Formats: sequence, C-alpha cells, structure tokens
Amino acid sequence: MIVVIYAHPYPAHSRACAALLGAIRGRPDVDVRSLYDLYPDFDIDGAAEREALERARLVVWLHPMYWYSVPALLKHWFDHVLIKGWAHGDGARALAGKDCLWVTTTGGGEDAFTPAGRHRHPFDAFEPPMRQTAQYCGMNWLAPIAVRGSHEVAAEALREAGAGLNARLDEWAAASKGRG
Amino acid sequence: MIVVIYAHPYPAHSRACAALLGAIRGRPDVDVRSLYDLYPDFDIDGAAEREALERARLVVWLHPMYWYSVPALLKHWFDHVLIKGWAHGDGARALAGKDCLWVTTTGGGEDAFTPAGRHRHPFDAFEPPMRQTAQYCGMNWLAPIAVRGSHEVAAEALREAGAGLNARLDEWAAASKGRG
Repeated sequence: MIVVIYAHPYPAHSRACAALLGAIRGRPDVDVRSLYDLYPDFDIDGAAEREALERARLVVWLHPMYWYSVPALLKHWFDHVLIKGWAHGDGARALAGKDCLWVTTTGGGEDAFTPAGRHRHPFDAFEPPMRQTAQYCGMNWLAPIAVRGSHEVAAEALREAGAGLNARLDEWAAASKGRG
Repeated sequence: MIVVIYAHPYPAHSRACAALLGAIRGRPDVDVRSLYDLYPDFDIDGAAEREALERARLVVWLHPMYWYSVPALLKHWFDHVLIKGWAHGDGARALAGKDCLWVTTTGGGEDAFTPAGRHRHPFDAFEPPMRQTAQYCGMNWLAPIAVRGSHEVAAEALREAGAGLNARLDEWAAASKGRG
C-alpha cells in the first residue's frame, strides 16, 4: 500500500499539485490522506494517522513548497504523528524500512533556484530537513520529485508530470513486489 | 524595538528556550509574542502580527528545533503573516531592511550534527529555509544562535547562553543606535 499524505491549504487554487494528485488518486494501491480536508482546524488525529502509516510500504509527502518547506499543517503532522516511542527513540521502529518519496511543487522555475535567482539557493539546499526527518525514522529516502514553476508551466507539462509520478509509482510497485 | 516571536509548544517543559527567553524578556526594548500562548488553536491574527512586525527593527525567531525546522505554529505564522503584497512581491517592502536573528535550541549535541551522528548533517544544513525566508522578505540575516544539547546541558551553561543572547541584543542595540 502507498499512503499519500497530501497537504495543500488551497486545493481549489492548485494547478500543479492537483495534476499530480489527480494522476494517482484512482490507483487501487494508493490511499490519499488530504490533511487540509481531514483537519481544517489543525486537530490532527495522531492515532488514525499512525494506523494509516503502519499499512504503508511507501509513504509519499505531496505538497506545494511554502516558505522553502512544508505547509504548516504538514509540519504539524510531523510534530504530532511522528512521535518518540513510535517513530523514533528507544528502539521504536514503526516506520523503519518503509520507503519515503517527497513530491513537491515550487512557484519558481529553474533559474530562481540559483545564487543570482530570487531563491538564492539550489533547490537541493532545502532538502535536508525533509530527508533527515524520513531518515531519522529509519525510512529509505527515494529521489524526490520537484515540479518547478507551477504557476507558469503549461497544462501539457503538468499532465506529463502527473504521468511521470504515476510511472514512478508503477516502478516502485514492481520493484517492491520483487523484494517481498 | 526588538520583536521576539517565541514558539514553544510545551513552555512548561522547556529548559533551554525558557532560559533564553527569561534572560531577555524583561528588557524595555523587547516585545515578546508567545505564539502558543496567543494562538493555542492555531488561529493566528495576521493583522496584529504584521502590526507588531512593523514596529520592529530586529525580529528574533526563538524556538526549539522540531524535525529540523520550526514548530508547526511558527510555520503557520510564516505562511499566514508573511504574505504577498506586504512582505514580498509587487514591490512590497514591509520587512525590508529590518534585521533578523534566529535563536534555536536542539536536543542533540555537537557530535549528533556530523555525518556519523544521529542527525547525519552539520547543523548548518538546516539553515537555508530559515535564512532564505528572511532574505526573501528583504531582511538582513544575522549570524544565528543555536544552543545544542538542550536536554543535557547544565543549568550553568544555560544561564551563560541566556547572558550571551542578552549581550548580543545589547551589541545590536548599540550598533543600531549608531546607524539611525
């Protein structure tokens, strides 16, 4: 089972995330948890979230970049769900060995993520907090997918990005079956 | 005026952040906004926050590291307060030229922030999202203060860290007076 943790504060205004989610949400092996629909008041049900994660072999974090990081509700999910004694610490291994795929969209294009661009850093500079959150829980960090320039990119490119994500999940599922 | 945005989800359990805050909260030039006290339901008053920021010449973000980043309510503050048309975009310059000082505490000591340590990265690897958030708003990024090993460090060391922060604000105030 693939559990997609989807965090878009304004789903109705989403183009890129909506295209990515739309491309995979009908899959029988995908369980989508849309955090802003489930918990509009930030009142996350930690037990329910942990139960969903326990069924996963692949955890996908799907969200637009907000201030070089996750939207606040996904940060709250990290703080509230990935707790000590379950996800980490004292031999807790609930997530250990699961795979983790980060899929995100950015408002800026490639040239924004350069020293002279408006984000001043390569995109990779913003990856360590995400990667290390997964790794601290013992998850395997897969190569992330970042769709750049989500405000400007053409509908056709978004369809391709969605198809690419879907193909990526197919590959993962095939390899996962081979492993176990 | 120095505006301190303080974000500790469990102030009663804080040692390091409490020591840092305690060392500066009585200063006449410091205005402390304790987000988890002001907004326990995550219902941030964006207008009030922006008004407070407008009075600041130095903005301090003070919080424990949670998952290699800020606690969720401070992330919500970024998303909700630093809005387009005020903090950035279309010539918006409400924060431009202000100074920004990041003060944080970590559960892991120096040896945890090494490739072989449990956080696998030097502490600096987690700085770009914070620094670039400030810089995108046109703020000047001052050298951060990170108090390591907050769970284990001795009371005396915490008093010193508090005194160090206080001295840092004194220096800033003196230099700031010189500039203005």
